[in-house]
Amino acid sequence: MTENSRTLLDQASPEMRAAFSDRARLQGMLDFEAALAKAEAALGLIPTTAAAAIAAECRAEDFYVTRIARGAELSGNAAIPLIAALTEAVTARDPEAARFVHFGATSQDAIDTGLVLQLRTALGLFEVELERLGRALIALIDQHRQTLLVGRTWLQPALPIPFGLKAAGYLSALGRVRQRLRELRGRVLVVQFGGAVGTLASLGTRGLEVGARLARELELGLPDLAWHTQRDRVVEVGATLGLLAGGLGKLARDISLLAQWEVAEAFEPRLPGRGGSSTLPQKQNPVGCAAILAAAARIPGLLATLFAAMPQEHERGLGGWQAEWDTLPEVCLLAESALKHAVQVIEGLSLDPGRMQANLSRTRGVVVAEAVSLALAPLVGRSAAHQLVEGACAKALAQDQELFAVLAELPDVTSRISLAELQGLCDPSRYVGVAEELCTRALAEYASITRSQA
Amino acid sequence: MTENSRTLLDQASPEMRAAFSDRARLQGMLDFEAALAKAEAALGLIPTTAAAAIAAECRAEDFYVTRIARGAELSGNAAIPLIAALTEAVTARDPEAARFVHFGATSQDAIDTGLVLQLRTALGLFEVELERLGRALIALIDQHRQTLLVGRTWLQPALPIPFGLKAAGYLSALGRVRQRLRELRGRVLVVQFGGAVGTLASLGTRGLEVGARLARELELGLPDLAWHTQRDRVVEVGATLGLLAGGLGKLARDISLLAQWEVAEAFEPRLPGRGGSSTLPQKQNPVGCAAILAAAARIPGLLATLFAAMPQEHERGLGGWQAEWDTLPEVCLLAESALKHAVQVIEGLSLDPGRMQANLSRTRGVVVAEAVSLALAPLVGRSAAHQLVEGACAKALAQDQELFAVLAELPDVTSRISLAELQGLCDPSRYVGVAEELCTRALAEYASITRSQA
Amino acid sequence: MTENSRTLLDQASPEMRAAFSDRARLQGMLDFEAALAKAEAALGLIPTTAAAAIAAECRAEDFYVTRIARGAELSGNAAIPLIAALTEAVTARDPEAARFVHFGATSQDAIDTGLVLQLRTALGLFEVELERLGRALIALIDQHRQTLLVGRTWLQPALPIPFGLKAAGYLSALGRVRQRLRELRGRVLVVQFGGAVGTLASLGTRGLEVGARLARELELGLPDLAWHTQRDRVVEVGATLGLLAGGLGKLARDISLLAQWEVAEAFEPRLPGRGGSSTLPQKQNPVGCAAILAAAARIPGLLATLFAAMPQEHERGLGGWQAEWDTLPEVCLLAESALKHAVQVIEGLSLDPGRMQANLSRTRGVVVAEAVSLALAPLVGRSAAHQLVEGACAKALAQDQELFAVLAELPDVTSRISLAELQGLCDPSRYVGVAEELCTRALAEYASITRSQA
Amino acid sequence: MTENSRTLLDQASPEMRAAFSDRARLQGMLDFEAALAKAEAALGLIPTTAAAAIAAECRAEDFYVTRIARGAELSGNAAIPLIAALTEAVTARDPEAARFVHFGATSQDAIDTGLVLQLRTALGLFEVELERLGRALIALIDQHRQTLLVGRTWLQPALPIPFGLKAAGYLSALGRVRQRLRELRGRVLVVQFGGAVGTLASLGTRGLEVGARLARELELGLPDLAWHTQRDRVVEVGATLGLLAGGLGKLARDISLLAQWEVAEAFEPRLPGRGGSSTLPQKQNPVGCAAILAAAARIPGLLATLFAAMPQEHERGLGGWQAEWDTLPEVCLLAESALKHAVQVIEGLSLDPGRMQANLSRTRGVVVAEAVSLALAPLVGRSAAHQLVEGACAKALAQDQELFAVLAELPDVTSRISLAELQGLCDPSRYVGVAEELCTRALAEYASITRSQA
Repeated sequence: MTENSRTLLDQASPEMRAAFSDRARLQGMLDFEAALAKAEAALGLIPTTAAAAIAAECRAEDFYVTRIARGAELSGNAAIPLIAALTEAVTARDPEAARFVHFGATSQDAIDTGLVLQLRTALGLFEVELERLGRALIALIDQHRQTLLVGRTWLQPALPIPFGLKAAGYLSALGRVRQRLRELRGRVLVVQFGGAVGTLASLGTRGLEVGARLARELELGLPDLAWHTQRDRVVEVGATLGLLAGGLGKLARDISLLAQWEVAEAFEPRLPGRGGSSTLPQKQNPVGCAAILAAAARIPGLLATLFAAMPQEHERGLGGWQAEWDTLPEVCLLAESALKHAVQVIEGLSLDPGRMQANLSRTRGVVVAEAVSLALAPLVGRSAAHQLVEGACAKALAQDQELFAVLAELPDVTSRISLAELQGLCDPSRYVGVAEELCTRALAEYASITRSQA
Repeated sequence: MTENSRTLLDQASPEMRAAFSDRARLQGMLDFEAALAKAEAALGLIPTTAAAAIAAECRAEDFYVTRIARGAELSGNAAIPLIAALTEAVTARDPEAARFVHFGATSQDAIDTGLVLQLRTALGLFEVELERLGRALIALIDQHRQTLLVGRTWLQPALPIPFGLKAAGYLSALGRVRQRLRELRGRVLVVQFGGAVGTLASLGTRGLEVGARLARELELGLPDLAWHTQRDRVVEVGATLGLLAGGLGKLARDISLLAQWEVAEAFEPRLPGRGGSSTLPQKQNPVGCAAILAAAARIPGLLATLFAAMPQEHERGLGGWQAEWDTLPEVCLLAESALKHAVQVIEGLSLDPGRMQANLSRTRGVVVAEAVSLALAPLVGRSAAHQLVEGACAKALAQDQELFAVLAELPDVTSRISLAELQGLCDPSRYVGVAEELCTRALAEYASITRSQA
Repeated sequence: MTENSRTLLDQASPEMRAAFSDRARLQGMLDFEAALAKAEAALGLIPTTAAAAIAAECRAEDFYVTRIARGAELSGNAAIPLIAALTEAVTARDPEAARFVHFGATSQDAIDTGLVLQLRTALGLFEVELERLGRALIALIDQHRQTLLVGRTWLQPALPIPFGLKAAGYLSALGRVRQRLRELRGRVLVVQFGGAVGTLASLGTRGLEVGARLARELELGLPDLAWHTQRDRVVEVGATLGLLAGGLGKLARDISLLAQWEVAEAFEPRLPGRGGSSTLPQKQNPVGCAAILAAAARIPGLLATLFAAMPQEHERGLGGWQAEWDTLPEVCLLAESALKHAVQVIEGLSLDPGRMQANLSRTRGVVVAEAVSLALAPLVGRSAAHQLVEGACAKALAQDQELFAVLAELPDVTSRISLAELQGLCDPSRYVGVAEELCTRALAEYASITRSQA
Repeated sequence: MTENSRTLLDQASPEMRAAFSDRARLQGMLDFEAALAKAEAALGLIPTTAAAAIAAECRAEDFYVTRIARGAELSGNAAIPLIAALTEAVTARDPEAARFVHFGATSQDAIDTGLVLQLRTALGLFEVELERLGRALIALIDQHRQTLLVGRTWLQPALPIPFGLKAAGYLSALGRVRQRLRELRGRVLVVQFGGAVGTLASLGTRGLEVGARLARELELGLPDLAWHTQRDRVVEVGATLGLLAGGLGKLARDISLLAQWEVAEAFEPRLPGRGGSSTLPQKQNPVGCAAILAAAARIPGLLATLFAAMPQEHERGLGGWQAEWDTLPEVCLLAESALKHAVQVIEGLSLDPGRMQANLSRTRGVVVAEAVSLALAPLVGRSAAHQLVEGACAKALAQDQELFAVLAELPDVTSRISLAELQGLCDPSRYVGVAEELCTRALAEYASITRSQA
């Protein structure tokens, strides 16, 4: 443990943490420098040997983070001391090559392109986990199209709903996030390359050529312009991950509510040591949901920072750009930690259909009051029907009777509806509308999004 | 002035304010109710006469906002009292029809679809103004591709840049916002229709048919599922407007900095009464920029609210949904007020190219120090070149001399570079790289986005 | 309904809405102008007759909001057109007096002092409602010191807790908010008076005299300096109300969770029309809690705006100050709407102690597992005790038996603890520690805060 | 460099980073455990030898962060695995003592009390740096009470102002922050001690005694109640640091604007390597101001998270509490980094009074237009005076003449005011009102706050 480390509570995957580690940040900038040198050599602007020497030194593990950090504080960004250190290293290898390090670029070119490279890695990791969560949700939907539970609005029982349709809601949101992530790739996965003020002045007339070649080296796009102080590209990544985290937070909210002792319809996977308490032997805490909800609670404030930092000054900002540096990575890490936990929770989700049924029954049939009311409306008038059923509900609850039993004793009802029909109306499993078709629609929609993705 | 009004400081356009007025909110819900009745009549679910009677009463101006407001507080949302009042009104016209009001829907169906209709209006208004701002920026770019001013980074002079390239940056961001707005239309412009828990139970097996017909009536899409507690669609609208506002804030930041007395390179339009002071006769305040910056400062916090409200409970949320109600409209109003002001500022923007040139000159040539340094590097070595020019810059500034003059007296320089060449190196207008091509690229990119929009 | 009104969903009290209406904003500025004239007349700087004429015209109801609004957009703030209109009105009454309108002040002096006057009104209204909520909570605590329910952590049953102690938590937080509100009064209830740049230059050497007199007229403090661009005073008000709203949100979260059908331990007051549904006859929605939670969800984003707007430029800001104008009032309105709803919910709160007891029983005694485990620890060792009780809990739940019954059949237990003692250990009412003393402490602490307030 | 480190861009002081390192977090919890054992031993609840054994093992450096981190992810918080590891360690030393580890407490007791201990350290560090910044500002005020520069509103010249009065504004805000920090200590520096649900059930009737003793051990207060889900205490710390950061951001905004090339009135300290550029030899970037502004831009979003997380569930929250864990430390670190940079910037601030005077002169006297206008008003009428001076300003600026010279040629003026008097009116140094007295007031107010602090 170093004195200053702050990773005790990070819960992103090791891969994602690596993607946004100090080393990855340095490597991102170094990849830019190597690719720039290669591009310039390919175009005859610098010697091929110089490009080779530069590229050979562009390995993050050879640099001292603490030294770069000290330099970053003094100079205002991490690229300046890194380039100085790189130049030193190149000099040792090939003094001639040293003067071509960072040729034609500005420090923000390296920093932003490095960030884009980190984001590309992150988007790849997200894609894999999104795919996995999607598969787990599809399985849940398939399995539980007819597993009824109480649908709840305002935290009160409303009508029956199959668990599969709840899961279809999660999948549907996931599909739209994947769609947006695909849409933004073209805007985001581009190089930053403009030189000090975006004109590429130090490359004379050849700036765009170099830019195109640089982009090809890095397998990124070449945007119309440098975007040093137009930050919508990176903020959009944050916002889209915010939509992801919001959807995962919704999923976790639901599961944690279903996992309440008094509801007990769904549970996080039970693993040894998971969710226990230091003193209470009986506890099974929904720790995955808590982690997801915490991430979903933290991202919005970080997004506010990113949006608020957009109005940056002239050709390079003062404070706004700097405010992004740790904020966007934090959004990525939190969103991924939420996604990782969601995969665990959904893949290991344990449902109790018996308890779902029991909870439905405990409502004494009032969750289908609407069905009875609608059936009676054409027979006795809508208002009379509503009042009649409202009274019957109250009685059923007060006397702990089934709504069916109460209604079966009302001549106003039995004179108009047969007992068999009444029983049908009071059967929750018959009052689920087009729930199954909706599940099918959601599956089809998701499939169409992921297909077009490929 | 009503006692409770709070519109003194609203600066959105009258059209946008109308789009998010209380009346428009009511009309949105009523449009849903009318379309629902028509759809159900078309499918034979309710009498055609009933649909006609209902539609005839769906006029917002016939309802009392204060009464609906009181009811909304009691019942928890505005649709419940509105539907009650509508039912009353329909009863007076055709008692039979009354029982078909709101048939098969839930209050959130009306509220959310109403919101989508308001958003469609808003998106249309945005489109018009974005088009207009785009035109004004294109004109600026065309006119000022060669109008040089000091490019500034960290609020310090860096290199020369044509004003047209600054404007191209604004246009480029605008283009991406238009692209995103186009992408989100399919996701956002859809009906909300699910009944109490999203199953459309009260319509039996015909829910999807009704949904499809309803969507057609309103010229909206039919989504895979109801999205009562999956809020990414509406949050995405907010986020995209946040990207717009961020870009406009950047534009306003720049203009207000250029308008400083000590810089005096660009000014907001001067109109009688605009930007004056109550006591200071000399003041010309950049009030348009201030309004844009204020809007850009207010939207991020509102977006944090929208993102944070996403994890909504089960089939209908408790608190989160309600938190959206005034927040998203506020985002729309603020973004539009920023856009409206940006159109005014850019269309009436007054530039002072003479002052730009003078400010460039006042840097004594140090803004092209990089050019000289790069030219000397191959001749004397990079490090020696850098030191030589650094020293010359310091001397030029200390003695208030031109960098050229200082360099022209250095044998190390003049022995290697002719005076004519040196003069060329010190000419800011020759050190702008590919600025003009970049302007062309930005114009082409924007044209391609707007073309594909049509 | 005016076309542009947006008050349909405001739920603050009429008094609070009046305090932040357009009219109140104008009146705040006019009160400043009247007091300034009186102060200057008292010091012989302007004629007494002029002060009288000015004061006579300082009635908000005589001004046209829409005209002031148009002027505000053009000039950048509402004070400029208001002062112009006031000057016109004074001219009509006494042409000589007109030239003393706003003498020595700047528009921000009027706007900020007006805001402080509005805040003073608001703080008074808060005080009354806080007092009322405090009384209602004290009654709940007194009544329910021994009313046990399941204490829940991570939404899972933990140990028994008296409802009175939960309520004591709400009261405790309320007390600290009242303490903070008292502490900030001296900082916040001060005039803003500095002239254009804070030097009071146009009053020569007499600025501070005028300031002192002005402050006395308005019964406000005179701060050390003008605070045109030092905004901590007003942001602090927002932050403190944010703490209030957070605490009320916690209260509403709890109540809405207790009101779940499956828990059914506490309910919002049931009033005709309150919390019903448009289609579901059985619904009792916790609409008060939803309103509180929505307010608590909206305030944090608004606070982010206020904090982010603090770094304002030089002697008067550009964008940041303007971002406050509608934001702080919104915080006040939302916080008050939460408080108003909390008073209603708590005053009319309906508890079901029988159900609380039943829910405790339904845990089969596992909520006191810790008690048994602790009692066994010295007898069999801590680890053995923990394992023994853990196993018994699992068995009790699996077989739906009382933990006591399971334990009573274990020789390892009965050989060491008498059945009577075991029964005592399994009695939730005996496992509440110092809950009653804590209630007393909380009541005493709150009393001491409110006493010192008086 | 470890693979996952993320400290490259942290700029808080080493002391503050240590205060919020993983190690400090562990040590905070361990200090709680040690003190708890001691308190219980002192009260005869556990053996003295057990307390000694426990205390002996409570050294953070003996625990493996990565192991605790893995356990934290599984169990939901860091205290559970830490206590398990501690118990193991104590067992090795004294098996009997092991069963008294964490006796009577819950994991949140350890975590929150540990946090309070970290906050106490942090508040101490803040105090030292606030004192130092205060001293530097006092020196600036003393030195520059009469150093005039252009006062600027809306980024436009308004009236002259002494630099000392600007600095007095920074000091005044600082004083109020120190006052608030003092006020909150009593609320914040308290133990968290409640056991699983706040009743201290496992300590029978002795919970409060233990609490009092524990508090004494740690030199913290004992609050009325446990505050597991009443989070105002810690959020208040964040909010107060947000006010600090906002004020520092304002200071940095000012300095960076004054440091613009075109203004050039104030500069950050120039140190070798500080604020340079990788390619532009002439650059002196205000890197300290950028760091302060970035911190001030990041804190508001973090505060939104803290406020939004307040409505936590029942006796222990699900997601909200967890959202605080890294957020509040981040606020502390950012606020301190801003403060540290502000100390550097202010202590080394370099002013250019000559340039200030020159900039004042370059306004051609229009910054004192108000003075002339006010002097003429009684002689020719206010409106005529305003028009006359407005015209003269326009002419002065258009023709690049001194306002005095323009006025001196107007018979309307010279017939009423002597040239000597006119010259006086046009002298900026005579138009600064009570600026010096205000400086004195601010110094006195600050002194009174810091005195009462002692």
